Amino acid sequence: MQHAKQISGQAQRNPLEILSDMLDCDMKEVNRLILQNMQSDVPVIPKLAEYLIAAGGKRIRPLLTLASTALFDGPMDKSYHLAAAVEFIHTATLLHDDVVDQSNERRGQKAANLIFGNQASVLVGDFLFSKSFQMMVESGSLEILAILSNAAAIIAQGEVLQLSTTNDIETKMPVYLEVIESKTAALFAASCEVGAVLSNQDQEIVTAMRDYGTKLGTAFQIIDDALDYDADQKTLGKELGDDFREGKITAPIIFALENVDKEQREFWRRTLGYKDQKNGDFEHALALINAHDALNKTIQLAKDYAVEATKALSPLPQSEMKTILSDLTSYIITRNF
Amino acid sequence: MQHAKQISGQAQRNPLEILSDMLDCDMKEVNRLILQNMQSDVPVIPKLAEYLIAAGGKRIRPLLTLASTALFDGPMDKSYHLAAAVEFIHTATLLHDDVVDQSNERRGQKAANLIFGNQASVLVGDFLFSKSFQMMVESGSLEILAILSNAAAIIAQGEVLQLSTTNDIETKMPVYLEVIESKTAALFAASCEVGAVLSNQDQEIVTAMRDYGTKLGTAFQIIDDALDYDADQKTLGKELGDDFREGKITAPIIFALENVDKEQREFWRRTLGYKDQKNGDFEHALALINAHDALNKTIQLAKDYAVEATKALSPLPQSEMKTILSDLTSYIITRNF
Repeated sequence: MQHAKQISGQAQRNPLEILSDMLDCDMKEVNRLILQNMQSDVPVIPKLAEYLIAAGGKRIRPLLTLASTALFDGPMDKSYHLAAAVEFIHTATLLHDDVVDQSNERRGQKAANLIFGNQASVLVGDFLFSKSFQMMVESGSLEILAILSNAAAIIAQGEVLQLSTTNDIETKMPVYLEVIESKTAALFAASCEVGAVLSNQDQEIVTAMRDYGTKLGTAFQIIDDALDYDADQKTLGKELGDDFREGKITAPIIFALENVDKEQREFWRRTLGYKDQKNGDFEHALALINAHDALNKTIQLAKDYAVEATKALSPLPQSEMKTILSDLTSYIITRNF
Repeated sequence: MQHAKQISGQAQRNPLEILSDMLDCDMKEVNRLILQNMQSDVPVIPKLAEYLIAAGGKRIRPLLTLASTALFDGPMDKSYHLAAAVEFIHTATLLHDDVVDQSNERRGQKAANLIFGNQASVLVGDFLFSKSFQMMVESGSLEILAILSNAAAIIAQGEVLQLSTTNDIETKMPVYLEVIESKTAALFAASCEVGAVLSNQDQEIVTAMRDYGTKLGTAFQIIDDALDYDADQKTLGKELGDDFREGKITAPIIFALENVDKEQREFWRRTLGYKDQKNGDFEHALALINAHDALNKTIQLAKDYAVEATKALSPLPQSEMKTILSDLTSYIITRNF
């Protein structure tokens, strides 16, 4: 990535790189706060936290918090705490997710629960979660605390809802969308909203930023769910077919189940409903998804949300940052990062 | 309990009953908030929360919050939210604990993770934890949010520390005390402290209330750990010998390991260190604990903390509530509730 940046000009850079560059110094402050707040006298806490946090990820949520503060010339120093808090909530969620999903891989490396055990993953997740609230309190705004604690409750609720739809092939699109709007989009929304609140924007603008985050996060998660069935993709640092193995009902499956014949329905019921899977099943699933054009339909759905995300920005005055956030919506669909 | 109350006069009532009666109407408000905040469109959330919360427990932490507000004629209505928040933090911790410990029993019934699964227990724990922060935000005090989010981080840290001392028979008293002061006493301390803060007490009184909670909570946990080896006790709603089976190093074990011969050390190493346990081992453990007078030493340690708890109250002006809180310290040692 670094190398590519050096040889390519400004024109070739994608919106996420541009955003990261613009907010580079701010992000360094956020990373400093992240490192500082994961310290503990109990050695496994920084070790486990570092394992996951150092593994990277694009820090897209804290970037959105910084961007939505910078957009309104808000107080950047206060946004650092919130950006770090948002990343901690996200990291805590990942730790608990991997325990719940019994994941094998995360961010291109063995999942933390396999290295440190499920017990440590649950408890260090709780620690990061508590720490995120400590950082939020330092922001000094009860309104922001309300936004982020509300988001945290919605995320947990979305995760439980997802659990109850897993292995249920009768799950329809509205419930799927409710799951991803809760488990993923709610934190994107809060990340964007708090920047506007911190910058004392009026309600119309605050709502616009929240909507932008909701739509962007929904598009992001739909693409994430598509990539789990995209055999051309192996850049994500998660295993292809994870969702299939767990029996998660995501957009590609819902589209593949439209107008399905009895035999195909039986296949999905056996493999996803009863998780009775054998060699070749995943390849057959990919073939069915292809036959139903389900991956293209999924990507189109994500694109529709990306368009909505851009529209949400319309009440904002024109600015360079607005353009970048707008460009980010279509870039997020490519997810070649 | 109800029956016992009816036939006995005021004189026979214990301090916990007196406290519960005095704060009965307030506690009803807290219970209303608890029920209201565990509602969700996702059915398993209220179901699981109700399973655990309805099972009871003595609500000692929220009672302490109410008592420490009433003690200073503070704003009771605001304390309801905090008392409910404290109980939610506690409940979330129990849910995650039972997953981590793979418990079979809690509050006299099957542990929630056995009924609803580990996954739901982790996620509903997260939900209750988030909700607790939402309720705290409603208190409108950043100082109180700081106290409670700090307590939550310390609890998680204590749980991780406990995990790293489990099966380590070299664990000494100071580390054991650090574990219980973090995992248990920190929430008792915060429960008491927030009442004083809410009532605008000066720093000396706030510190006194926090100290009282710390010492009381430490005594409470030491007794809890003693009861796990007290064959005469079967009223706790947890299985006798749970800690032994998990290889937890608690006060009775630490005392039993003092001046121990090689053969006995090998016994503890096998059963607790390697969790290689067979029929009769628990009975032999009880015999060794008895031979070392370890249970009496443990109870004496708890009594010492109870005395410290009473001493912590000395800066407070004399009042009926102060007397009850003082009496509670010696009652908590009996733990025949």
